[in-house]
Amino acid sequence: MDSSRDLVLTWAVAEIINKASLVKRLESKKKLVVKFGVDPTKPDLHLGHALSLHKLRQFQELGHDTILLIGDFTTKIGDPSGRNSARPVLTDDEIQANLKTYIDQAKLIIDPKKTKIRFNSEWLSKVSYADFIKVAMQVSVQTLLEREDFANRMTSGHSLALHELFYPITQALDSVVMKADVEIGGWDQRLNMLMGRELQKKSGQPPQDVVAMKALVGTDGERKMSKSFDNYVGLTESSDQMFGKLMSIPDQLTDQYAELAAFLGSDEIKALPKHPRDRKARVAEKIVELYHGGSAANKALQNFNQTFRDKKVANHMASELLFSQESVLLLHAVAEASQCSNTHAGRLIEQGAVKLNGVKMMDPNFEIMLTGELMMHIGKHAFRKLGRRK
Amino acid sequence: MDSSRDLVLTWAVAEIINKASLVKRLESKKKLVVKFGVDPTKPDLHLGHALSLHKLRQFQELGHDTILLIGDFTTKIGDPSGRNSARPVLTDDEIQANLKTYIDQAKLIIDPKKTKIRFNSEWLSKVSYADFIKVAMQVSVQTLLEREDFANRMTSGHSLALHELFYPITQALDSVVMKADVEIGGWDQRLNMLMGRELQKKSGQPPQDVVAMKALVGTDGERKMSKSFDNYVGLTESSDQMFGKLMSIPDQLTDQYAELAAFLGSDEIKALPKHPRDRKARVAEKIVELYHGGSAANKALQNFNQTFRDKKVANHMASELLFSQESVLLLHAVAEASQCSNTHAGRLIEQGAVKLNGVKMMDPNFEIMLTGELMMHIGKHAFRKLGRRK
Repeated sequence: MDSSRDLVLTWAVAEIINKASLVKRLESKKKLVVKFGVDPTKPDLHLGHALSLHKLRQFQELGHDTILLIGDFTTKIGDPSGRNSARPVLTDDEIQANLKTYIDQAKLIIDPKKTKIRFNSEWLSKVSYADFIKVAMQVSVQTLLEREDFANRMTSGHSLALHELFYPITQALDSVVMKADVEIGGWDQRLNMLMGRELQKKSGQPPQDVVAMKALVGTDGERKMSKSFDNYVGLTESSDQMFGKLMSIPDQLTDQYAELAAFLGSDEIKALPKHPRDRKARVAEKIVELYHGGSAANKALQNFNQTFRDKKVANHMASELLFSQESVLLLHAVAEASQCSNTHAGRLIEQGAVKLNGVKMMDPNFEIMLTGELMMHIGKHAFRKLGRRK
Repeated sequence: MDSSRDLVLTWAVAEIINKASLVKRLESKKKLVVKFGVDPTKPDLHLGHALSLHKLRQFQELGHDTILLIGDFTTKIGDPSGRNSARPVLTDDEIQANLKTYIDQAKLIIDPKKTKIRFNSEWLSKVSYADFIKVAMQVSVQTLLEREDFANRMTSGHSLALHELFYPITQALDSVVMKADVEIGGWDQRLNMLMGRELQKKSGQPPQDVVAMKALVGTDGERKMSKSFDNYVGLTESSDQMFGKLMSIPDQLTDQYAELAAFLGSDEIKALPKHPRDRKARVAEKIVELYHGGSAANKALQNFNQTFRDKKVANHMASELLFSQESVLLLHAVAEASQCSNTHAGRLIEQGAVKLNGVKMMDPNFEIMLTGELMMHIGKHAFRKLGRRK
C-alpha cells in the first residue's frame, strides 16, 4: 500500500534535498508552502510536464499551501539551464498567450480550487537595480560558473551573456519572497532550486527542501520527452492522437508510463493485463481518460483497434518500400511511395494526409528509423510497408 | 610653443583611444561633452589625483562642456579595478562627507564656474532591475572576465562577487546617459572607460574618446603616488608640509613634478634654475603656490631654508644613531633615540613631535630607508642623525 505521504517522498522523485528535513516538515502539523515554478516559454504542455504538476497535486491532497508560480518576469531573462546559447527573448504578448494556455492545461492535473496562482512579475518588476546589487553581493561568480552548463559555455567558445547569470538568482528570490518550504521542479532545475536554498539562508529563512523530479522518457524510448525531439504526447492532443502515440512506445516503457503518466499505484500496475499489447492499450486508455474522460478514452481504444485491424489487412495488401540506409526522411519516403516530387510530397504532409503506424505526421524532416513494423498511410487508401533492404 | 589643443592631446597622457577621432572632434566647432568621473571613496585628494582634474581644466579652457561626475551610486558597488577583493561598502554618510570634501578640493584645480557637477545616483537610482537585465544582455561574461584583475581573481581563489562585474557596465551607463564625447580617467580606469565606448555603440551613439592619464610617481620616486604607500602630497596639507615633502623627492623627479604637478610648460621648465636643490625648491614653490597662493609658497620656501640651515648646524651637533639593517621603523628609531619605550615613542609620534628631514611624521610604522642624509628631530631641540653601521 502506498500512503499519500510516502508517495510524496517517492513517486517520480529523482532526489530530495534535504530528505530528512522534508520528512520532518511533513510530520509537523504545519501547512507547508509548496512552490512549483514554470516559465511560460511554450504554448503547450506534454506528459513530461505533468510529473511536477502531479507532484504538486500530491501535496495539495495532503492539504498544503500549493503555489503555481508563473515566471512571467523570469521568462524575460530566460533559463540558461543546459543551454549553449542565450534563450531568444519572447514578447510580452507571447508570454501572456503562453501563460494563459499553460494555466488552462495545468488545471487538467492540479486541483484549481486548491492552487494559488502567482506571477513573479508582481514583485520582481518592483525590484530596483540598487536592490539587485545587494543580492548580487551575496553570490560569487566562481560558484555560479561551476555549473556544468555555464562552465561548458566558458570553455567551448559559446558566448555566455551576463544576464544569464541572473536567472538562478532571480528565481531563487521567488522562494525568498514566498518563504517556500518546498520547491518542486525537474532535474534540470536542480541548481536553480539549490540557489533558492542559498538565498533563503542569507535572508535568515530556513532553506526550502528541493524535490527534483525524474524526467519522462519520450515515445521513442530513448530521450527525455521534449517537443524538440518530436517524441512527445501533448496534453491537448485529440484522444485518438494521444492513444496512437502512446501505442507507439516500446513495450518495455509501458510500466514506466503506467506509473509516471497514468499515475497508477503499484497495486493497479500489478492488476494490468499481462499481454504486452493489451497492457499498453490499458495504460494508454488510462492516460487518455485523465485528459479526455472515460468515454473518449474508450472511443479512442476502439478507433485504434479498428485502424490496427485495417492495418493488419493492409499489411498483406501493402507492397514493401525498402531502403538501403538505416533511416529515411519522411519527405523522401512519401515522394518515393507516391512516385512524386519532393514538393508534392511536402504538400501531402502539410495537408495531414500522411500517417505512420496510425500517427499523423506533420514534419517532412522527421527521420524514420527503419526498424520494426512500419506502415505508412498516404491519404485514405494508399499503404506502404517501410523497411530496410537486406 | 605648446598650443592649448596640443596640450590636451599630449600633456600627461598615457594613451588616447581613439586619437584620430579626438583630433577630429577637437577640430570641429562642436562643444564637446567631456566627462571625468570619480567615486568619493576617500576624503582627501593628493597631487596624483590632480592630473585628471587638470586635464579637465584644459578642456574647460578650450570652451568645452565639462562634467565632474560624482559616482555616489557607483561607490556603492565599488570599483574592482586592480583589486583582489570586493571593496568594503561605504555608508551613505561616509559617501556624502567624502563627496563634499572631494568637490571642495577639486575646485582648487578646475574652474568651478565652468564645471557641471553631476551625481550618478540621479539616474542610476531610478534604473530598475528589469532595465539592467536589458543592458546585461549586451555584455558577455567571457569578455568581462578577460580583464586581468578579474582573471586573476578567478584563478587565484580570491572570491569575485557578482556585483563587481556590474561596475564597469554601470559607470559606462553614465557615458551613455551624458552622451559623452570624451572621457578622462587614470590608466587604471582604462577598461571601465572602454566599456563606455561599447555601451554607447550598442545604444547607437558615437563612442566616446578615452583619455587615459599617466600616473604621478610618489615622493619615494618608486611607486605611483598613493595614500596606501604613504608617498603622497595631499592637496589640503599645510604649505610647510607640502613644501617639505616635495623637497624630499629624488632629484631626478624634479622635472616630472614640474610638468605633472606644477603644470609648467616646456618653456617654463627650460627656464628653471640649474642647481638641483634650487630647481627642486622652485618647482616645490610653484606647486605650493597652486594650492596656497604665492605668499604662502614663498613663506614655505623661507621656512624650509631656515630648517635646512638649522639642520646643517644641527648636523654637526647631532650625535649619530646607527643601525645594522637597511631600514628601521620610525617607532623603533624614536624609541632608540629617546631611550624610551615603544609606547612612549608612539605617543611622541602621535603628538606630531617627530620630524624627518623637516617633515612631520605621523605614521609609527613608516619604514625609514637608511640611505642619504637623514636628520630626525624629536620635539624642538633633540636631533639625531640616522645612518647605517658600516
